[in-house]
Parts: sequence; structure tokens; C-alpha cells
Amino acid sequence: MDEFGLIQRFFNSIAISRTDVLLGIGDDAARLIVPHGFELLVSCDTLVSDVHFLPSWDPYDIAWKAVMVNVSDIAAMGGSPSWLSLALTLPALDESWLNRFSTGLKAALSTFNIALIGGDTTRGPLSMSLTIHGFVEKGRAVTRSGAEVGDRIFVSGELGAAALAVEFMNTEHIDLEHQSTLLEKLKHPIARIDLAHDLQTYATAAIDLSDGLSGDLMHICEQSQVGACILLDALPIHPLVAYYQEDACEFVLRGGDDYELCFTIPAERVEPFHRSISEAGIACYEIGVIEKDLGLRAIKGSKIMPLIARSYVHF
Amino acid sequence: MDEFGLIQRFFNSIAISRTDVLLGIGDDAARLIVPHGFELLVSCDTLVSDVHFLPSWDPYDIAWKAVMVNVSDIAAMGGSPSWLSLALTLPALDESWLNRFSTGLKAALSTFNIALIGGDTTRGPLSMSLTIHGFVEKGRAVTRSGAEVGDRIFVSGELGAAALAVEFMNTEHIDLEHQSTLLEKLKHPIARIDLAHDLQTYATAAIDLSDGLSGDLMHICEQSQVGACILLDALPIHPLVAYYQEDACEFVLRGGDDYELCFTIPAERVEPFHRSISEAGIACYEIGVIEKDLGLRAIKGSKIMPLIARSYVHF
Repeated sequence: MDEFGLIQRFFNSIAISRTDVLLGIGDDAARLIVPHGFELLVSCDTLVSDVHFLPSWDPYDIAWKAVMVNVSDIAAMGGSPSWLSLALTLPALDESWLNRFSTGLKAALSTFNIALIGGDTTRGPLSMSLTIHGFVEKGRAVTRSGAEVGDRIFVSGELGAAALAVEFMNTEHIDLEHQSTLLEKLKHPIARIDLAHDLQTYATAAIDLSDGLSGDLMHICEQSQVGACILLDALPIHPLVAYYQEDACEFVLRGGDDYELCFTIPAERVEPFHRSISEAGIACYEIGVIEKDLGLRAIKGSKIMPLIARSYVHF
Repeated sequence: MDEFGLIQRFFNSIAISRTDVLLGIGDDAARLIVPHGFELLVSCDTLVSDVHFLPSWDPYDIAWKAVMVNVSDIAAMGGSPSWLSLALTLPALDESWLNRFSTGLKAALSTFNIALIGGDTTRGPLSMSLTIHGFVEKGRAVTRSGAEVGDRIFVSGELGAAALAVEFMNTEHIDLEHQSTLLEKLKHPIARIDLAHDLQTYATAAIDLSDGLSGDLMHICEQSQVGACILLDALPIHPLVAYYQEDACEFVLRGGDDYELCFTIPAERVEPFHRSISEAGIACYEIGVIEKDLGLRAIKGSKIMPLIARSYVHF
């Protein structure tokens, strides 16, 4: 089968129809309509074999993760995802691989009603670059630069399990039953689109947790020209991280791949925010406060210490 | 320098300001406005080292070509490019490489006033995936599916030089002075955005010539459910291709990488089209006619023969 047959067979079949897609895959470009009164959000992320996933993974999981990593960026803006384009580089044509990959792709896209609007397959070392598009009402996007002194810092879920999976994936140090729990967190994140409306309504700044809490929070601080103090005892550490890691706090501060959100909310909006998310059955955790002094600090018991932002560095 | 410093230094400096970019690089996603009354066009293309370019190329040229290959897809829709996101995968941090690459990127983007709205750098084998965005007035996009029986087939420039450069790049068969001409065509294509308005006004279908004339024209035929007959003597063959290739027609029918446009125009609109482009100082070449019988045919002298669409296949 040639390249064109391949693309047609596996990707054209992912037919999620949206009225804002006038023309999807199969022409030089997709034709799209952004609804009146909305901004367009665009983000791109690449996933490379042996860096972001292992070639031995089920291709279903690779596709799922690739989509969610991208959708997570739209979630962090308080947006709603709409369209995805996928540039896939493959070492060879492998129909069973493509079958599993496209099944995982369809499952992830269906979760949020995202249309696949473009694709490009190329021969080369296994990697994929995805560009996700989303909408947000004009002026309602949540950026990294809006945090203000006194705002409370939140995270949207338990942290550290995905990083623990990476660290221990190939060792015997973790009980078999726990391994599957951790791998599930690593391979099957679910982007926090469920928080979009509450972020728009209550948050002053937000970022998704891809490279580690301390590094990602530091991006908010730098772009908002503020600092932050984190209560280590308030960190929502995944139980297995607490169980296996001696310094679990340090581990979640630098461990990436959670794809939860970190965001700031003014003190006076914390209560209505909590009411709103608890009505929606969502749990978020208050972990600290935005301060005037630049940089990060951590409180452990009655001790305040400076915190060096550390995050996953590709190079 | 860490990854974030790298991105900031080289890519944030490519500051092409556009009022439709509310927020560019540096947050989880870009915030963008599509002007009222316009559709959004989106296309993505990947370029892989040793497949689409050689790692020995000046990084300036790699960046230029990567941008133009993508912009060409917007040109083929009759659109105007606006924003680019770039996912760059690099084997290592190389400042001088990045310096040249970002200079070429800036030059290409400046040519068409395109803003860089997102970037992702990843460690891995050298490759890049670009997603280009553009606008076209609602309902004015030119697709591959509108060709009708009797329409005349055009190409926008001389063909075959880039493919000849690929074929002979590492041989001695070409005079030194000719080599630089051919390499210029391979490395420095200029996307035919200059034809956008005339395509919207006169063309029924269009495609950009990336994989070879016969294969690309066949895409128009398939999606328009028509056939085509090409006059081989009318093909605008680049003089050096005519000089070096025994069967120059065959060569341009299957040789890719030209990034000219192929499009169809109803017979009665050919004259006003010619008037319009000649006023703009643009030359286009009529090479055949759309027919009812499916498939491709070629006329050479008084002989009609069937033509097999052949194009560059990655796998």
C-alpha cells in the first residue's frame, strides 16, 4: 500500500464530524470556521520515541498520550479543544501498528469531540508532532501572566505517579499490582478540560503540569512577575509516591508528566470556586500562595526554605 | 543553556507583530483572532533529515524550505498565510546551527508577514513539523475537487529543476555553474502566494506540486471525478532539465519538489485570467484539458497515450 492509501485507510476513517470543519483531511489545507465571539487557541507538542514514550508501548497508548498532552495545553488556557492535526513520522509501514495507533487516536479524539483536520506521514525515526486547536470566548482565556500577590495556588489532582512510573518502569522495586496503577497514570492521562469553565470564571493564571510542579509554577511566577510559597504538607502526593519515595515532596516538585493543572485564584474567590467544583464532583488542592518576593519558597512544618525550580530538561 | 533559554533566545526574537495575534509564543497556547468573514486554513508538513533535506545543508536553507513547503499549501487553496507553529526535533543543542536556522526562519516568515505563534523543541533525530495557518474569504477557497470537464489545466512555472538537483546532487554529471542554479531551485522555493487572488477569481481546482505533476494532477482528477489530458509539448520544462534529461517530459511528470501550483480554469475564463496575470507580471502555462474519461492521458505530436500517475512515495 502506498503512502496515500495508508493515510486514507487509517486516518480518514476517524470521522468526527463538526459543523465548524468545512473540509477536513484530503486537500492542501483544511477549511475551518472559528465561531463568532471566540478566540482561537493553538498549541503544538512533539513526542519522540525513547524520550516521551517507549517504542514497545501499545500504539494505542502512544496515540492516547500524544493527544492528551496536547489537549492539556488547551485545558490550561481554559479553552475547549476542537481540531487536531497530526504529523506522524514512522520508520516503516506497519499495518498492525497503524491500526492500534489509529484506534487509540480515535478514542482520545472522541473523548473531547475533536476532529482530525490534517495529517502528514513521513518516513523516519518514530515521532509525532501534534497541533491542537481550541476555542475560548473572547477575553476569557487564562494565561500564565495574570497571577497576583495573595492569590492562592491550586493543583487539580494527585501528583507524581507518572514520574514514578518512568523512574521505576524497568526495575523490580515496585510491586506488580502497583506497576499497572502507575503505568495507567503515565500512559492514560486525561486532560483537565472539565475545569475549563471554572478556570475562566475564577482563575487569574494557569499552566499544565508537564515538566514538574516547581518548574511549571515558576513559569507562572516569571510571567506574572511574582513569587510563590508552597506548603509541602498540602501537596496532593499520589499514595504510591508517598509509599515508595523517601522524599516524596521533592519528587513531585520536579517530576513531570502529570498533565494536571496548576492555577491561581484570588483569596476572595476561593470559596465560590470550591462550591462550584464540588457541585461538579471535582477535587482540587490548595498548595500555597503567590507572594511579592520573586522566586519559590517552601514551608515544611514551621520552616521556610528557598526552593529551586527544577524541571525536566530535554537537552 | 537549558531548553527554555534556547527557545526564548532564538525563537522569541522572531517578532513579526500582527494584530490578530493576541498572545504568541510563551504560554500554553497562542491566542488568535480570525478576521470576521474569513475561513481559517490549516495545513501541516514534516521535513525529515536525509529524506527532505540533507543534514549538511546550511540551516538557513532548511528553515526557508520548511516554511515555503508549508506556505505552498495555503497558496494552493487561494489563501493568505498568517501564522506558523514549529515543532523542532534536534539531536543536540548547537547554537550556531540554531542561529542560522532562526535567521532563515525569520527571512522566510518576513517574506509573507507570517507570525511564529508556537514552538516546541525536543531532543531526537533532526526533523521538523510545521503547521501553517492562513485566511481566505468565506466560500472563496480553491479545493482539489472543483475541476470540470473542459476546464484548462495550468501550471505556474517551469518544472523539474528541483528534482534534477536531487537526482544529480552528488554526481559529476552536471556543470558546476548549473549545479548552483538547480540547488537554488531545490533549496529556495518561493510559495506562489502571488497567485492567490487570481486562483480565487478564476480557478475551479488547485493543488501544489510537491510530489510530481502526474501524481498531483491525479489528486485533482480523483477528487473532482474527472480525467485529464496533458499536451507534453506544452509542458514548461526548465531549460536545464531539457538539457540534461533525455526524457525531460517523463522527468517532470514524476519529479517533485517544485512547489509551483497546478490548477484548472474554465475555458471561457482563460482569457481574462491571462489578462489579469500578465498585468501582474506573472507567467502561467496551459498544459492540458480536463476530460470526462477518468485517468490521465498524454498527447505527443499526434499520438495519444495513457499516462500512469507516478509520484514520490515515502515508503
